[in-house]
Formats: sequence, structure tokens, C-alpha cells
Amino acid sequence: MNFREKLKQSSKKNNSLLCVGLDVDLSKIPSHFINQEDPIYLFNREIINATKELVCAYKPNMAFYEMHGIYGLQALIKTTELINTLQIPVILDGKRGDIGNTSAAYAKSAFEVFGADAVTVAPYMGEDSVAPFLEYKDKGIFVLCLTSNHGSADFQTADQEKPLYRLVAEKVKQWDTNNNCGLVVGATNPAALQEIRAIVGEMPILLPGVGAQGGEVEACVNFGADKNGENIIINASRSIIYSASPREAAAKLRDEINNFRK
Amino acid sequence: MNFREKLKQSSKKNNSLLCVGLDVDLSKIPSHFINQEDPIYLFNREIINATKELVCAYKPNMAFYEMHGIYGLQALIKTTELINTLQIPVILDGKRGDIGNTSAAYAKSAFEVFGADAVTVAPYMGEDSVAPFLEYKDKGIFVLCLTSNHGSADFQTADQEKPLYRLVAEKVKQWDTNNNCGLVVGATNPAALQEIRAIVGEMPILLPGVGAQGGEVEACVNFGADKNGENIIINASRSIIYSASPREAAAKLRDEINNFRK
Repeated sequence: MNFREKLKQSSKKNNSLLCVGLDVDLSKIPSHFINQEDPIYLFNREIINATKELVCAYKPNMAFYEMHGIYGLQALIKTTELINTLQIPVILDGKRGDIGNTSAAYAKSAFEVFGADAVTVAPYMGEDSVAPFLEYKDKGIFVLCLTSNHGSADFQTADQEKPLYRLVAEKVKQWDTNNNCGLVVGATNPAALQEIRAIVGEMPILLPGVGAQGGEVEACVNFGADKNGENIIINASRSIIYSASPREAAAKLRDEINNFRK
Repeated sequence: MNFREKLKQSSKKNNSLLCVGLDVDLSKIPSHFINQEDPIYLFNREIINATKELVCAYKPNMAFYEMHGIYGLQALIKTTELINTLQIPVILDGKRGDIGNTSAAYAKSAFEVFGADAVTVAPYMGEDSVAPFLEYKDKGIFVLCLTSNHGSADFQTADQEKPLYRLVAEKVKQWDTNNNCGLVVGATNPAALQEIRAIVGEMPILLPGVGAQGGEVEACVNFGADKNGENIIINASRSIIYSASPREAAAKLRDEINNFRK
């Protein structure tokens, strides 16, 4: 089953457009995990068990595992192995991108070593830096388009004849000959989200920035979902995994999202 | 000693502007390494021992280690530990970049786990995605500006009022309040290299693309070096590490570079 089908299936089964970001910060997780042998994995396992009937996908960000070196990356592999058993897609958030043979190594890493069903990639180096990922026809490749951080103004929305985020959306639409592309679009700019959706048709859009970064759910669903109310993946990390009850926080956000679906 | 000083020292000691890229490909290394317990590290150690009097820096690209999972990343750590003992700077080529707290995790990973003196980062997400790296005042941060691959035409040199690579060079010049920024500029576009050098003054420029990618040494040195013939780091990977004699290949390229220095 390819990524798009797997996502559709988990989204339907759990009636959910919610993706939970597994961005473990050892300084924020409950203290009873810390003295155990494998706190990152055990914390993730608890989050996954609490939310596995509520999500369409999980998104671990590689930075939070790399920063713990070999141990962190072992915990990442164990985490993706667990998620793989649940028929829920793993979107591995690494924002990689390099020249062709190097991107091919990153693609192999993500899909064959770290158990990803989909990845995020950076567009800066252009088509041949993304192509080795796209060759994995059964996987999903979410290209950074418009991010939710302050610095997105430096280049993505810099005052140009055509804003960079729009140029990226148009190029990715062209590159999508295997029907496996997606875009990352931050939740904090609804007008641009609407514009990007119009360019890319039914391409999946991954939306970080709801919750901790201030994006509003109604606008995300209204402007981000395709004409069938699908193909939008709304990611929340900190607001769910560090809440007193991750299950309740995930259920609440899933339901809030569903209230706005057509 | 900070990165700039360490680079200056190794460059002076070895009379070299040459950086050797440690991009190990197990399908290309001599067969006698393959059956040993730790082929990646042993291959790197041989390259390092053959070239340590000829280089100003080494540049391992993380992709080629990540693709081998835990084993590859252990070999990377062993490799950077070896280089660290030689007082030669390690430029860890990862092209990372994410929102602030995530980039902070990547910076910690590169500088505190993987033993880097400097890193490459991606500019797409703007200032706050680069800032956590810049806070490491003693390290070097090379921001992707203009790359040597075909896809650089998609965004970096796309027809806009101001080309993206120029906008990036100008922004990085502004961000360089700790005097620890650098740029990555491919060796295949001498005119743009000259333009970028004029923008950034004496900022270090890392130049990949000589050799396997077709960049010419004379133009790199003429247009890339600062007014003192310094602050350019010319990287070669495959043309050295897979040659019959890495020492001879490195010596030849070092000397060729030096012939063109003022």
C-alpha cells in the first residue's frame, strides 16, 4: 500500500485529519520516564498508545532524536517500528535536501533505515535535489513551501515579482508525476494557504503551527482542505504530547477539526 | 580557539585552501576494507592519514553516514574524534534548518554530539531557523547560497527582481554579528561567485564542485578568495578519496590552487 492509500485508510478509520508530532524534549516529559532505561521510546509509546485511535499520522522530527546521538536515533527506530505495526503512516520530518547522489543517501536513510512512509524535504537546491526522494513512488514527499515561523518573511514571502513560496508550489505541482508529492504550509497564513491549495489541486498539505504556534483550526480546514474536505494533515506536537492528558487533547483537537469539515 | 582561528591555523600550517570531503560510498572503496569490522571508519582513517598535511579542513556529509543507520553514525563520531585530535577543523555538511527550538536541537547535535567545528545550514526558513546555530559563537555556520547543481536554476537563480542567492548573501551578511557566518557557493558559476564575494567582504566561502562537478580552479581562486587570497575553502570529495593515490591527488589539487593565489 502506498503512502496516499495508507493515509486515506488511517484517516478514515480514525475519522481524523490530526497528526501528532513526536518531538520529545527530555526536559518536558513526566519525571517518571527519566530514570528509566529508554525514556524517549517509553514516552513515545505512551503517547502513541493514548492517541492511536485519534490520528491519521505521526510525525517525529529527526532533530529531537539526533541531539541525543546514537541513543536518540535508536529510540527513533524503535518508535517508527512500533508505529509501523499499527498501519498508521510515519511522516519523518527532516527537511533534508542536497545534490543528487547525496539526496539519494538521505532518501535511503529515511525510507529504508528509519522506517518512514513519508518525509519532509527542503526545496532550496531545486528539482534534482528532490528527485531521488520522488523515485520512491510508494512514499510521500512533503516539500517545504510556506512555513509558520517569523523567518518565513526573509525569503519565502520576500517582496518579489513572484513570491518564492508560490514558485515552489508551482514547481512541486510540475514535479508530481508519480502522484507522491505534498507540501508543508504553516497554519498561520490562511490567505496564502488558500492560494496554494488552488495551485496544487488535491495534493496533500501538511500543516504545522496549530496550537503552540497560534494557527487557527477553522481557517486551516476551510482554506487548506481540498474540495472533498480531504488531503490536509494538521500537525500538533507540544500542545498534545505535553498536556496532562494527551488522549483528551488529541480527541478535542480531532473533533474541533472535524466540526469544520464540509 | 574558534573556528575561524582554527581554520586559519590549519590553512597556514599546511599551506592549503583544500578541504577533503569524506563522503564514503561502500560500493566505491577498495575491497580490502569491506570485509573488515568497521570499513567506513577504516577507509576515512586511511584518507585522513594520507592527506592530513595537505588540507585546511575535512567535510563529512551526514547523508553518507545516516544511510547506514546506527553503524554509520557511530563511524561518523569516530571519524570526527580522530580529526579533532589533529587540530584540523571538521565542517559537518548536513544542510539542516527548521523552526527555532528544532534548529537548536540540530545545532546541539552537530556541535556537541558529532564533533563539528562548523556546519552547513539551509536558508529557506529564514533568520530564526539559522539563529540557534549562530549562537555558538566559536563555531562556523556556512549558509547555502548558490549551489553547483542543475536544480539551482529552479529557485536560487530564478528570474526575479533580485535573485534568491543574492538576497541570501545580503541577509547572511546582516546576520553575521558574531563573525561566525560563511556561505556555500558552488564552483560552477564564477560571475556569481565574484558578485557574492563583493557582498560579503572577508566572510569564508565554502566552494564545492571542483573536480567531479566541473568547476575550474583558477576561476574559484580568482573570484572566490578575499583580497588577501584567503577565506576560501575549496572542497573536493570523489576526485580525491576514490583516486588511486589520495595523497597525490590532494597534493596536486592543493598545489594547483596555490598556483593561482595572489
